[in-house]
Amino acid sequence: MPDLIEPRVLKGFRDMLPPQEIERAELIERLQRVFRSYGYVPIDTPALEYADILLSKEGGETEKQVYRFEDNGGRDVALRYDLTVPLARFMAEHRSELYLPFRRYHVAKAWRGEKNQKGRYREFIQCDFDMIGSDSLAGDLEILLVMRSSLAALGVERCTVRFSHRGAFNELLARAGVGGKSVEVLRAVDKLAKIGEAETRALLAEACGTDAAAAVMDFIMPGASSAETLERMEGLSGGPSPSTARLRGILAGLESLGVADGFVLDPSITRGLDYYTGIVYETFLDELPGIGSVCSGGRYDDLVSKFSKERMSGVGSSIGIDRLLAGLEELGLAGKRESYSDALVACPSEEAAAECHAAAAAIRAAGLACEVYPDARKLPQQFAYAERKGIRYAVVPGGRDKPLIVRNIARRENREAAGAAEVAAIIREGW
Amino acid sequence: MPDLIEPRVLKGFRDMLPPQEIERAELIERLQRVFRSYGYVPIDTPALEYADILLSKEGGETEKQVYRFEDNGGRDVALRYDLTVPLARFMAEHRSELYLPFRRYHVAKAWRGEKNQKGRYREFIQCDFDMIGSDSLAGDLEILLVMRSSLAALGVERCTVRFSHRGAFNELLARAGVGGKSVEVLRAVDKLAKIGEAETRALLAEACGTDAAAAVMDFIMPGASSAETLERMEGLSGGPSPSTARLRGILAGLESLGVADGFVLDPSITRGLDYYTGIVYETFLDELPGIGSVCSGGRYDDLVSKFSKERMSGVGSSIGIDRLLAGLEELGLAGKRESYSDALVACPSEEAAAECHAAAAAIRAAGLACEVYPDARKLPQQFAYAERKGIRYAVVPGGRDKPLIVRNIARRENREAAGAAEVAAIIREGW
Repeated sequence: MPDLIEPRVLKGFRDMLPPQEIERAELIERLQRVFRSYGYVPIDTPALEYADILLSKEGGETEKQVYRFEDNGGRDVALRYDLTVPLARFMAEHRSELYLPFRRYHVAKAWRGEKNQKGRYREFIQCDFDMIGSDSLAGDLEILLVMRSSLAALGVERCTVRFSHRGAFNELLARAGVGGKSVEVLRAVDKLAKIGEAETRALLAEACGTDAAAAVMDFIMPGASSAETLERMEGLSGGPSPSTARLRGILAGLESLGVADGFVLDPSITRGLDYYTGIVYETFLDELPGIGSVCSGGRYDDLVSKFSKERMSGVGSSIGIDRLLAGLEELGLAGKRESYSDALVACPSEEAAAECHAAAAAIRAAGLACEVYPDARKLPQQFAYAERKGIRYAVVPGGRDKPLIVRNIARRENREAAGAAEVAAIIREGW
Repeated sequence: MPDLIEPRVLKGFRDMLPPQEIERAELIERLQRVFRSYGYVPIDTPALEYADILLSKEGGETEKQVYRFEDNGGRDVALRYDLTVPLARFMAEHRSELYLPFRRYHVAKAWRGEKNQKGRYREFIQCDFDMIGSDSLAGDLEILLVMRSSLAALGVERCTVRFSHRGAFNELLARAGVGGKSVEVLRAVDKLAKIGEAETRALLAEACGTDAAAAVMDFIMPGASSAETLERMEGLSGGPSPSTARLRGILAGLESLGVADGFVLDPSITRGLDYYTGIVYETFLDELPGIGSVCSGGRYDDLVSKFSKERMSGVGSSIGIDRLLAGLEELGLAGKRESYSDALVACPSEEAAAECHAAAAAIRAAGLACEVYPDARKLPQQFAYAERKGIRYAVVPGGRDKPLIVRNIARRENREAAGAAEVAAIIREGW
């Protein structure tokens, strides 16, 4: 007999047991229903791609964490680390088969060999939705509405989308004479919520001098209302521009749609990433702001520039499924189901296998989910199994032409039912 | 400007465009509903695992195709090549957190660097369902019933599950004195449908001599009915045994459940794989037998033996999603939707962005899916977009307090509607 191998997963990876996976599946199904109702369609791309497709020549922080290797055919390949670069490749490769504006959602795994820390995994689910091929106010508004509808579909009643515009921010930087330092400035501003005002100001001063730091800090402080904030932003960044006009249009649109309450113009939202050029946003649960943004993104001008000369503007957002699940759990909005079964069909004897399956089929035909206990153990053992799994009823076949027994597992009480329809009625009435 | 990189995927990999991915998602959702109705629950395991978890020391044909590499931390890792080995590891690792019998389904990607050939991909979706922890007639029957329900849920009205029992087959081999040659014999028998009787007999004779080959060929020939086949199998393998008793129980069970028509006892079904020990089965579409089995599996005695001393019997099946999709397409049972949208809300002017979104929100609230055209292009261009995507209606907002225009895209006719409820009614009635 060979030595036993210790069953274990890689550091930073994890299994999903049924209660977690049922909850994750439920969450994803609800999100998909929202995406589809807005006209978004699913696509899929390979988990493994040529490394030169996924990685840039410069190689940023993220790219150092990529799982990259040589395959058996000697190709330089890598596991995708997000769904945005594959989307860019997909759009460039299939341009002639797609209709613009192209709305897609993609819920799939990505991998990054990050340093291990609480709540960060090396394998994670990315949930992205984007509209490509239209740089329009309607597109910006739509992404904000999809985010709002998505959280509502999950039962989150109070959340706030904080948004700004990278164009306006860049105009401020140019005016302050530090346009060339935008990467450092963005990184510093992105840390505001984490490290506070004083430290952010110090970081900024280090990057671009005290005066520019003061101008940036002034700019990113929100006003008393979104309208007032917009006035300030406009004044500090050198007057009205297409960027501030777009922000004005968004504020008016949200107002006229009666949803302005859930949205706040917040110029400190810049997103650390280089490639955003228009609106940017993050979403916070009002009751759990500390867990950070659960849904973020923005508008980018040239999605496919690495692969094609065509310019393609897009706007999109990414939902942090794992963070959101943790948040919902903390808010008591997550289920903990071990099973989908409404009933367990108990097995009175080995000879009754077909009878049990017949009863189960009839109960399913009446619209309920049920599972058959496959072994002829003592009934109390079978009931205990149902109880542990949270299955509320057991059904015991009584033999040919005999009534079925319906047992309420928690109450430890039995009732008779003439057939599956009556079983379903008893369970549905919640006895 | 950096050089453009050619957008391309690795050989043996592919993108799924919306019509294919919508169809695949629909198929998976239908299957999941069936699995859940039978009490199966989802789990997830990492795509990447320690190589010693996934691979055996001997290393079979399949294992040579595995994507295996050293990660940045120097670990010997591999991408999973099926969902069965990870299930075994999962069961051993989480034994104390799970309730037996444990029913799980898992729909996820796996990877094999196979030689490129038509219809074979290096990245593919595996769809498995298994019941672990019960070696029972009820379990065997259930897996057969789930397979049947799964295909029915996909609209397949005529399919046949061909099944046999590896125990009975092994008894025949022992009787013919070639028990030690079982791997070669299994491989030869597994090729019967592909290479025909004469070639199979030749292969067998090579493996175990002419006499044993004759005994095996005799055994695997089906009788006129399942009952007759069982009689023959019993006679040739040395009389009644637990294996033939189980087959008898399955036949009687299927009969009493009124579904015997879709099942055929076929002793030539052995599945090439070593680890099956009980019932084995393959499923064929009656109208397309040539595409091969779309759903196969069997019972195994010691799923977790690599990781634990505990013996755990299981029975499970795997649905070939890609093959099945190709089959459904050939049978005209697959859709080709570009979109989920029931209507396109057209954009009459840039200023109307919020009005368009308000109309779309009201139509969604009435239960339909709709998308907003985000740019103020000429209406005929917007209608053409709807037509290409198969969206049957367009809705043009008429301005404050004005009726909406509903356009039947194919007929090129318009109607007025007072509000979203009337729009939904017009679309639902199929005008």
